[in-house]
Amino acid sequence: MHYSPDFVEAQANQRRAAQARRDQLLQSQRHPAGTAGALMISHYSSLDSGLSASQAIDMLRREAADAETIYQSYVLDEQRNLLGTVSLRELILAAPEAAIEQVMVRNIISVSVHTLQEEVARLIRLHDLLAVPVLDDDGCLVGLVTCDEALDVVVEEATEDFHKGALIANHVGNLRDATLGLLYRKRVLWLVLLVFGNLFSGAGIAAFEETIAAHIALVFFLPLLVDSGGNAGAQSATLMVRGLATGEVVMADWLRMLGRECGVALALGATMAVAVASLGMLRGGADIAFIVASSMLVIVLIGSLIGMSLPFLLSRINLDPATASGPLVTSVADAVGVLIYFGIASQVLDI
Amino acid sequence: MHYSPDFVEAQANQRRAAQARRDQLLQSQRHPAGTAGALMISHYSSLDSGLSASQAIDMLRREAADAETIYQSYVLDEQRNLLGTVSLRELILAAPEAAIEQVMVRNIISVSVHTLQEEVARLIRLHDLLAVPVLDDDGCLVGLVTCDEALDVVVEEATEDFHKGALIANHVGNLRDATLGLLYRKRVLWLVLLVFGNLFSGAGIAAFEETIAAHIALVFFLPLLVDSGGNAGAQSATLMVRGLATGEVVMADWLRMLGRECGVALALGATMAVAVASLGMLRGGADIAFIVASSMLVIVLIGSLIGMSLPFLLSRINLDPATASGPLVTSVADAVGVLIYFGIASQVLDI
Repeated sequence: MHYSPDFVEAQANQRRAAQARRDQLLQSQRHPAGTAGALMISHYSSLDSGLSASQAIDMLRREAADAETIYQSYVLDEQRNLLGTVSLRELILAAPEAAIEQVMVRNIISVSVHTLQEEVARLIRLHDLLAVPVLDDDGCLVGLVTCDEALDVVVEEATEDFHKGALIANHVGNLRDATLGLLYRKRVLWLVLLVFGNLFSGAGIAAFEETIAAHIALVFFLPLLVDSGGNAGAQSATLMVRGLATGEVVMADWLRMLGRECGVALALGATMAVAVASLGMLRGGADIAFIVASSMLVIVLIGSLIGMSLPFLLSRINLDPATASGPLVTSVADAVGVLIYFGIASQVLDI
Repeated sequence: MHYSPDFVEAQANQRRAAQARRDQLLQSQRHPAGTAGALMISHYSSLDSGLSASQAIDMLRREAADAETIYQSYVLDEQRNLLGTVSLRELILAAPEAAIEQVMVRNIISVSVHTLQEEVARLIRLHDLLAVPVLDDDGCLVGLVTCDEALDVVVEEATEDFHKGALIANHVGNLRDATLGLLYRKRVLWLVLLVFGNLFSGAGIAAFEETIAAHIALVFFLPLLVDSGGNAGAQSATLMVRGLATGEVVMADWLRMLGRECGVALALGATMAVAVASLGMLRGGADIAFIVASSMLVIVLIGSLIGMSLPFLLSRINLDPATASGPLVTSVADAVGVLIYFGIASQVLDI
């Protein structure tokens, strides 16, 4: 346990925590937020490469009250270049006179001060590390990022991606304490933008006003068909956004994913077409049944492909793919859905 | 570093990893998935309460090659009841002859085998723990959950919440390797359910067919107004879903959140009403402008309140609130939006 009711320990912890905050403040001024440099703590145990195992243990014993952790020490040469790492367990198990250069583990995983925090967290998670050392541009050890920092990063990044997906501007902070004004400002921009984005759907409808006026029953199926494209698109987009965020999927997978998505979307679209065909039959006869079923198939297919591709596209032009998972893909799929539906309807009904 | 290219260490790690997998398999048969019991490892260092600090260090030195971690040891009485915890650092700093009962920290944070894994991860994150001990129903120590397990839990839970929000059935597994058939099965149920859910919107439109036929210009604003309610609702729902998941917000906050949401939603609705009023003026004159502006205000308000309340409601009836953040809230807000829009329109235009 890190924190304890024991007074001395608590005092030491408080001192360390305060120092860590000061460190992070100092670093955040030097390194941009969201990088390993801004996140790292500079309290770690380092050992000179010339020491023996027993000298190293003695040195750690003296340092133990101050360093963030003595369980993992970094072995440095005179220029503070990182040579390797040695755990307290390895030092205890080693012969007392063994040189730590013989005991230490070489070829360790490290990151640069410029590495993005989500990448640091991913490395820690992937390799089950307790901490990862951070090197500056000269390869010198300047700090480390611990597993519990990675835990905070992962939760923060997920929250940010959730918010972005719902088109909420980032950094709402603690939801409980967010003020009315803050929430308004974080939400209003995209909502207004989407109003104007939805003009395309409205314009699509206006272009087919005569068809609609002649066959008013078509409007009954409008929300159902248009939303189905948006819903299927949101599913595809969410799967890809999360896959890209966790590293399960990379840019190079796009073409293979697209092929699979076509198959899945056709199967989904066909199932949903069957479901609406019967409704179309009931409300408007064979023509309407044919129109809504074929529209459903095409709308779900196109909606899914848009949803699947949008995160890759945003990623490609260096925007955050997370933005694509919610209302953005729904709005795009809506406008396309209106055109497909009334396009098919006017073709069929004008013959 | 946990894993290393060093052969002996690697062998020991492999042995420990294999043992940990066997343990987890065994435990998952005894404890339901998603609980601390199924997640815990049973490799930890324990010390009898009667030992001195130097005896404890000797004992750990002998155990060091096998135990998952020797940096944090649990002090047990004869019935394996957990009395406290002691770190290797504290043992090294203590006088060699000191009793570990004097050195150890009491009142430590622990969880039960039944505690849900997201709760375990939250405790580890909140208190910056390296590991948390797991107790059985008799208060006996049976295992521990480490920080790197918590990291996996947090990522998995976030992925699950993302997928649930997009109404994808859980456990897609690795997205890259998911088969076409699996993705179809995980996605089809909710998509078809929403088709029937959207019948309410269609029925709403059908109920106002005469009004629409007489004022076909109203259809132009349909996607724009209806989607705005869904978008605002998705924002509110996402904020609450994530707030509930991270513990920033609890059930008891609902009423206070509702009050603030009313204020935010009115401000958002008013802004968007101004935006559409001018469009309404351009396309249909003062009547249409009044209808679309007042509809927008009411739709955004109601959509936001639905979005904000739905996660709490689902949570209340023991369903996962995450389900509420995407297409579900959008579909509900859509149906309500149709009724509000055409309700206001028929009132204004029939006078």
